[in-house]
Amino acid sequence: MRRGNVYQIANGYMGYRGTLDEFSSEQLVGITLAGIFDRVGSAWREPVNAPNGGFTSVSLGGAELTALGKKVARHRQTLRFDNALFQRETAFVSKGTTLTIRSSRFLSAENPNLGCIRFSVMSDRAAQVTIRTGIDANIWDLNGPHLLHLSAARKDKVLVVEGSTNESSKRVVVAEASDIGFGEVSYESSGNRNLRVVTFRAEAGKTYTFHKYFAVFTDNDAVGGSLVEAAVEAVRRAASDGHEACLAAHDARWREKWARCDVTIDGDDEAQLALRYSILQLLMVAPVKGSANSIPARALSGQVYKGAIFWDTEMFMFPFFIHTYPEKAVELMRYRIRTLNGARRKARTEGVGTRGAFYAWESQETGEDACTYFNIGDPFTGRALRTYFRDKQVHISGDVAIAMWDYFRLTGDDSLLLEGGAEVILECARFFYSFAYFKSEKRRYEILDVVGPDEYHERVNNNAFTSMVARETLTIATEAVGYLRRRHPKALGRLLRKLRIEKELPAFQDAARRLFVPGPDPKTGIIEQFDGYLGLQESTVEELKARMIHPNEYLGAGQGLAVPTKIIKQADVVMMLNLFRTRFPSAIKRANWEYYEPRTEHGSSLSACAYAMVAAEFGNLDFAYKYFLKTAKIDLEAKYKVYVGSVFMGGSHPAANGGAWMTAVLGFGGVQADERRVAINPRLWRKWKRLNFHLAYKGDDFRINITRNTVTVAPSGTNARTHTMVVAGRPVNCAPGRLATVRYRPSR
Amino acid sequence: MRRGNVYQIANGYMGYRGTLDEFSSEQLVGITLAGIFDRVGSAWREPVNAPNGGFTSVSLGGAELTALGKKVARHRQTLRFDNALFQRETAFVSKGTTLTIRSSRFLSAENPNLGCIRFSVMSDRAAQVTIRTGIDANIWDLNGPHLLHLSAARKDKVLVVEGSTNESSKRVVVAEASDIGFGEVSYESSGNRNLRVVTFRAEAGKTYTFHKYFAVFTDNDAVGGSLVEAAVEAVRRAASDGHEACLAAHDARWREKWARCDVTIDGDDEAQLALRYSILQLLMVAPVKGSANSIPARALSGQVYKGAIFWDTEMFMFPFFIHTYPEKAVELMRYRIRTLNGARRKARTEGVGTRGAFYAWESQETGEDACTYFNIGDPFTGRALRTYFRDKQVHISGDVAIAMWDYFRLTGDDSLLLEGGAEVILECARFFYSFAYFKSEKRRYEILDVVGPDEYHERVNNNAFTSMVARETLTIATEAVGYLRRRHPKALGRLLRKLRIEKELPAFQDAARRLFVPGPDPKTGIIEQFDGYLGLQESTVEELKARMIHPNEYLGAGQGLAVPTKIIKQADVVMMLNLFRTRFPSAIKRANWEYYEPRTEHGSSLSACAYAMVAAEFGNLDFAYKYFLKTAKIDLEAKYKVYVGSVFMGGSHPAANGGAWMTAVLGFGGVQADERRVAINPRLWRKWKRLNFHLAYKGDDFRINITRNTVTVAPSGTNARTHTMVVAGRPVNCAPGRLATVRYRPSR
Repeated sequence: MRRGNVYQIANGYMGYRGTLDEFSSEQLVGITLAGIFDRVGSAWREPVNAPNGGFTSVSLGGAELTALGKKVARHRQTLRFDNALFQRETAFVSKGTTLTIRSSRFLSAENPNLGCIRFSVMSDRAAQVTIRTGIDANIWDLNGPHLLHLSAARKDKVLVVEGSTNESSKRVVVAEASDIGFGEVSYESSGNRNLRVVTFRAEAGKTYTFHKYFAVFTDNDAVGGSLVEAAVEAVRRAASDGHEACLAAHDARWREKWARCDVTIDGDDEAQLALRYSILQLLMVAPVKGSANSIPARALSGQVYKGAIFWDTEMFMFPFFIHTYPEKAVELMRYRIRTLNGARRKARTEGVGTRGAFYAWESQETGEDACTYFNIGDPFTGRALRTYFRDKQVHISGDVAIAMWDYFRLTGDDSLLLEGGAEVILECARFFYSFAYFKSEKRRYEILDVVGPDEYHERVNNNAFTSMVARETLTIATEAVGYLRRRHPKALGRLLRKLRIEKELPAFQDAARRLFVPGPDPKTGIIEQFDGYLGLQESTVEELKARMIHPNEYLGAGQGLAVPTKIIKQADVVMMLNLFRTRFPSAIKRANWEYYEPRTEHGSSLSACAYAMVAAEFGNLDFAYKYFLKTAKIDLEAKYKVYVGSVFMGGSHPAANGGAWMTAVLGFGGVQADERRVAINPRLWRKWKRLNFHLAYKGDDFRINITRNTVTVAPSGTNARTHTMVVAGRPVNCAPGRLATVRYRPSR
Repeated sequence: MRRGNVYQIANGYMGYRGTLDEFSSEQLVGITLAGIFDRVGSAWREPVNAPNGGFTSVSLGGAELTALGKKVARHRQTLRFDNALFQRETAFVSKGTTLTIRSSRFLSAENPNLGCIRFSVMSDRAAQVTIRTGIDANIWDLNGPHLLHLSAARKDKVLVVEGSTNESSKRVVVAEASDIGFGEVSYESSGNRNLRVVTFRAEAGKTYTFHKYFAVFTDNDAVGGSLVEAAVEAVRRAASDGHEACLAAHDARWREKWARCDVTIDGDDEAQLALRYSILQLLMVAPVKGSANSIPARALSGQVYKGAIFWDTEMFMFPFFIHTYPEKAVELMRYRIRTLNGARRKARTEGVGTRGAFYAWESQETGEDACTYFNIGDPFTGRALRTYFRDKQVHISGDVAIAMWDYFRLTGDDSLLLEGGAEVILECARFFYSFAYFKSEKRRYEILDVVGPDEYHERVNNNAFTSMVARETLTIATEAVGYLRRRHPKALGRLLRKLRIEKELPAFQDAARRLFVPGPDPKTGIIEQFDGYLGLQESTVEELKARMIHPNEYLGAGQGLAVPTKIIKQADVVMMLNLFRTRFPSAIKRANWEYYEPRTEHGSSLSACAYAMVAAEFGNLDFAYKYFLKTAKIDLEAKYKVYVGSVFMGGSHPAANGGAWMTAVLGFGGVQADERRVAINPRLWRKWKRLNFHLAYKGDDFRINITRNTVTVAPSGTNARTHTMVVAGRPVNCAPGRLATVRYRPSR
């Protein structure tokens, strides 16, 4: 269960849980596809899992071997960080014979439809061995079955399984080829399995190796012809190239990835391991180029959370990609452009008179909201509780707009704006304008009746985070229009005409100016999370937990124990301070951090890293480190709950993975980039001797090396121009290929 | 329990449950005082019950007799409607001897501090009888004890018990005098009882009669001297006047009351009885002149609902008094003037930036809100549920302002405006203005985040009832200022300066003009109860009840079964159509009535009569009658629940009493009065041959007699001027003392 998560591999197109070759649906084998969803009846809509083209089982003397059985003498499995290669080695003992299986598996980083497996068996004594290998269409689904009309076929020696989703009849095709060069081969197609059966007498001590190639194609792939042919052709080509060639191409891609994204930490192996694992996760699930896919909250690790994309992506994953790998960041943003019409529909249907783009809280392929109004179970009544995540968590549109603008600000690449990014920004601004109310007496706009990041307190007014994000969106809209007017006046004209929005622009500006955002109290520095928050009951997380009657009772949803108290689910004001970290002085960050932290349950994996980031900002590095490590180790240790009640919740936490990177590089590394420059103000944790990472900025690349008292910037020799960075407050010229080193005084 | 409610008597100063002379706290004897409240610890604040000065017990041969015991041969108790006299007669048999007790009791309508009792015993055989009579300070309290430092004293032959409330040390004094002229008298003071003990040998067949007088005084009585002396003096004077004289004065007052308020219905004895009983209830609990008290939701029948005044008073009781007995209506309004500062405090503390007067949802003597944020128990968790009655049911301020203005409109008496009524209206308008938000795009104000009369759907936007009431308040404020400017410019000047409100008045006008109130759909005529109501799930009350897991589960409070559905607790849009009955055509009333009625649980006693009223308006008289009768019989039949869980909920329903009168006179009688004229459009129910009632209008009095096809108006001979009424659409001159009869065509 947990191992399936920890050892999973992925290539952006699909994720393959870290299960073993002989496993099937009962052992929760999952090959989860990006961007293709299906719904059965009234159950949750969720991503589609593909038939398993990686299936291989081995029988010894007629008995099928499984690593979960009693004959296992030895088992070892590994996941390589450098190229996301999964390997296993299992020795089975049966009637005095030891048979060892070795396999390695990768999902090609070069060819996203392709998976490759090398499989070998070796018996210490001569033995009768049967290998069944091919496609297992017994698919594990949370709310399936999603593939109907499953059919098995064979094209020459290539096996094919084909099915189609029941909601929209999207076809999913898997082809598999194998280069088995020993034994008697026959074919067997039964019980949703399409297999080739190889029977042979294994000589003692001889290793029998073969290679498998499987390819997955769906109607989402613009193959311009038969899906089956495309899949068959893909595996044939791979087989013809051979395993080594495929692996070499894959490895080359992975070397590029790591070159851009690796972070090294000297002096702290634990942090190094956890952070690298986090980065590996992000690199594996980054969308395929041109796919306009995004990364779901559980990435490609399965169907949990409906495979939906949340704000997590923009807030916690996007920063990693925009700072290291903008080609991936742009796909995340293209996904929001692709789903703009869904967001427009939601604005129309979810609000009274709202317009523009209100993005889905749980977004799938069309941008329709997969979030239900009744999203949490009540253990007391067995009923579902009404929550307002879907209809009131409006900050999502601002999160999207801010990321969209950041892409432009930090890459300098305005093509995204032109291909729909500006349209997204304007429609998000329009949404907030139509959502806001004006308080005549106070001459100000207010953002009312929302849910902020702290989901325990629903339907609040003037939530600092949401209002700040809304104001920022309105401001960005004005800036984007200003930029396009200067640089792309014709494109702007077309856009304004299309949206019929020109007359509204002054109102956006006015609203941005007059929009109320709760600010720091002049005496205490505390920013009130929302109207009335400071008047709520004092409590502690422990106290609330002690008052719980049922272990699964939810603390929010209007009547939960946290609702009348100041206890919050996750960073909210502190999240705002993190997102807008250049806007607030250190003292305000500290004051709010110290006020809110003891009142935070950290009931979400997003919370710890926001607190870690802000703690790093104002200098509580020990705390920052503690929460950094907690965040970075989530998936590696996999100590989270995998079941809530009877619902499987396991899977990876890409937002935490991104949060770990953010805390390391932006927090401890002190990197702060905007459209003008990159600033670096390091505050290494005390055990860290060196922090080394890559930065992408305005199309150029930099390697940054931070020691206890120096910062060295190594601009790539291929950089297009010289940049001025501000390191520890001092401007540093960073010319292509020229190292620049600055000494700084560590904060303590 | 129920009988204590059905047979209760009251005189506006106090209510005396219909318990028997010999009963004590265990039998729930309650003498509930108007306008004096106390709180013990963190329990609910509630009215104070006075020590029982009406206590008398009789022992026969040493054994105390009680009507709850086994020796009762016969018992009969009655409540006279004409003078609110409670009588009982009980025959006890013990060892062959039958002893009969007769008593009659009234709370003086002439002297509100006074209660008078005639008590007699008669034994059919000679017997040793002991009578204990005096003051029993064993008080039944829901959340007591409220009276501390109880002390008993005797001033000559007058018994006194004195105590003081624990919250604010308000003294409560009871004095009792008796004219016992037989037997041996001694005194006994023990166990909170202060008694006189009369022992005598009763002769066979001889009736021994005595009279008791008890007086209650509290620190709320401005006696200008010692409370004890005042109480002692009161009972001495009553004793000196004698029972007959006291009763005669009482009766004279009651004749006046009935002359003003009686309604006769020929052809329907059931309706006649129920309606008279309802009117009796209202007359008994009407506030004492000059008290500036109002009528709580359970009137003076006990401590249920914290003895608090709700909107019920303005919406359901005030119409009865304003149309029949304006001297009582004015006290209800003075109560709101008296509690204006409490309402101002609530506006400041309950809202962010709201100003003006936000009246308490559950109002006690200071106008502080006795309503808790957690007002309903959750049977699943045993916790209290957060409800928004207190902080979001803002229509209360409009209900008050409308009634305040109606007092002026229908009496022509502007003194109330000058003594604080205009201030209340302006402060309520200010509240709504400060509460409203402006929607820039739509150029309109909206009233957001409220609870309307249908409390199952909390925190809704643009609730038709609330918005209409808010707009009306803003309009009334402008009209009131206009009136005062013409008639009382100096007083207006003082008021505007005091409130510093003059600059705000144009904004009120503007807001009234631009305030959005959901109107009828052009096609269906349906008025949407609030934003989004029409999109809620369809259901039926039966369906919801079938889905209930626990019999006491509440259907609202954010997660209740009714919340996602269209099922409403009580009349809401229909209540609005009732309150503003001249503003909507019959077809709209019918359309909304027919839409909402099947979706209404009628979970409040206020609901049925609103539906009955509106049904009468558009001509569904059978339905109107059915709900009229249901409303009118509530207290007489007392079939309501008296316990909810362990909480006593019994008591009278003065709002339903008022609703019964409204339905009879305004509904079936078709009376509609405004500042210009009285209109009468009768629509008698088919069995009613005649409906006869009194009307007070602009200081003059009228008797109206409606038959199946005539309306006769009998203006009082003492009327000051000739009025023009509009009867069945025709103007009718109503000169003092001159009968005017108009024929009309019955609606069917």
